[in-house]
Amino acid sequence: MRIDHRQAWDLLCSMDRILLLTHRLPDGDALGSIYALYLVLKSLGKTVRCETDAIPSSLRVAVIPCDEPAFAPDHVVAVDTGDRKLLNDELNERYGDRVDLCIDHHGTHVPYAEYTLVDPTAAAASEVLFDMLKLAGFVLTEPVARELYIGISTDTGCFRYGNTTAKAMRAAADLMECGIDTEYLNTELFETKTREYAAFERLALNALRTYFDGKCAVMVVTRAMYEESGLDEADDKAVNALPRQIQGVYVGVTVKEKKDGGFRVSMRSKEPFDAAAVCAALGGGGHRLAAGCELTGTAEEVTNIILNAVKPAIEKIG
Amino acid sequence: MRIDHRQAWDLLCSMDRILLLTHRLPDGDALGSIYALYLVLKSLGKTVRCETDAIPSSLRVAVIPCDEPAFAPDHVVAVDTGDRKLLNDELNERYGDRVDLCIDHHGTHVPYAEYTLVDPTAAAASEVLFDMLKLAGFVLTEPVARELYIGISTDTGCFRYGNTTAKAMRAAADLMECGIDTEYLNTELFETKTREYAAFERLALNALRTYFDGKCAVMVVTRAMYEESGLDEADDKAVNALPRQIQGVYVGVTVKEKKDGGFRVSMRSKEPFDAAAVCAALGGGGHRLAAGCELTGTAEEVTNIILNAVKPAIEKIG
Repeated sequence: MRIDHRQAWDLLCSMDRILLLTHRLPDGDALGSIYALYLVLKSLGKTVRCETDAIPSSLRVAVIPCDEPAFAPDHVVAVDTGDRKLLNDELNERYGDRVDLCIDHHGTHVPYAEYTLVDPTAAAASEVLFDMLKLAGFVLTEPVARELYIGISTDTGCFRYGNTTAKAMRAAADLMECGIDTEYLNTELFETKTREYAAFERLALNALRTYFDGKCAVMVVTRAMYEESGLDEADDKAVNALPRQIQGVYVGVTVKEKKDGGFRVSMRSKEPFDAAAVCAALGGGGHRLAAGCELTGTAEEVTNIILNAVKPAIEKIG
Repeated sequence: MRIDHRQAWDLLCSMDRILLLTHRLPDGDALGSIYALYLVLKSLGKTVRCETDAIPSSLRVAVIPCDEPAFAPDHVVAVDTGDRKLLNDELNERYGDRVDLCIDHHGTHVPYAEYTLVDPTAAAASEVLFDMLKLAGFVLTEPVARELYIGISTDTGCFRYGNTTAKAMRAAADLMECGIDTEYLNTELFETKTREYAAFERLALNALRTYFDGKCAVMVVTRAMYEESGLDEADDKAVNALPRQIQGVYVGVTVKEKKDGGFRVSMRSKEPFDAAAVCAALGGGGHRLAAGCELTGTAEEVTNIILNAVKPAIEKIG
């Protein structure tokens, strides 16, 4: 059942012995929203604990001490989790069918909780929480504001992505006034790369080639690059942005060799290049400016398939 | 004479045949503020023109058509220019002693205009203009908002740097509501590298080495890298940020070979490492987390001088 911010707040206030969950492979908004809600509920005198997947070292600034002993929860609340399948398998099995409340911002939300507060116009689950707390007149403390800022800033790429709204900017402004050190947080969150990622990025950039007068860039990432850098595959997403960053490039393609053979292709484009159409023709799909597909063959064969596929659209740009 | 926002607006309204100037090597705020003011004054029916240095291709999104024929100005207004010496030499000679009004945000402002509106708490000159226009009740059009957004977003590193205030965030929020395409602007301004810079960065990253258990990173940039990439020295600043970005690095050092021999050293650090103290001991200076000096010798000798200089401070961190 869909409920609004006020109803969600009243529901939370009526609960005790609460278990908080968020999605697997937690990102900044998963952690920002779960820890902010934890701190709020603690300050209301509730017994509450969090269960999360392993937290990537890049997000250790989000972590707060929550050393609650395990207890059998009377209530289960999930944040930033648009589908119960996005909980890790163990948590989904144990709690997926008994979530009392979910607070989320995904337009693709698949309802699973008894009560659901979802606002797809919010840039982050942390923004939904911010709205709820503001409406409830809850006075934000610095630690709560810090977590909500982490959630909103990471989900918007530090206010850079297309989901950044004027409302999200104003929420961040209110949070900044609670005394958080945003300069420190922004450096840790947006100006820091793990050693493994830095090594991987360097190797990948060395493999970047441009075609069609620099209108297309292709970067082939091999298994050897994962091995040499020590990077875990789960942490390799950010390189997908690199080929399109070069001025004059309309379509940037990252081709990643899979563990079990074959290649994952990520295609990012700029108007008027339609990456979704090209990837669909190659058996994949996605959005107009960010799409993907899978291909088999040698790295050279796959590169040629891609170059042949993008060529007509690039020639049309002229 | 210092004046406030209201007085500056009244002064502008009383002027006509206005020449607008900004500082040499214009950045996003220089262009955002000069073009925003140009559009505002045009909309008031004024005869107005801009004179700027060559505009870097990375900022071409800021440029608007202003094809005014040259006219002998009755009034001269400078924006974002904290010292008349920051005008290019020709403009400084012709107009530096007859600037009627300067609108600026630099705490280091050296007065040179007859009337000066300077707000050092503003993140950008464009924010000072925004405040003035808001106070005056001027209804922002999309093109004016776009220029002011470019100014504020570039001077704050897209709301990432320490100068980003809650007030600057709210100004940006108001500007976003004027219908500007911030997703497009942010991609062009913050997700785009020239081909030459991308090639230069790749070469520089290949030269990055870490020391002292990864607490120090040193990147030696040679003349050959400028030649191979084709990058102009004026566009090489952004690489200075790279060494410190690696997780675990307390001090990131960029060592750039100068045209005429010797090396420029840029040192960026994280707390508790005091880069200013180390650079001062090497004959340079700067801020605690961003300092510099100049050294002579071979690349290897210079690297050793730096490693010896940073060693005691790194050992103290432990």
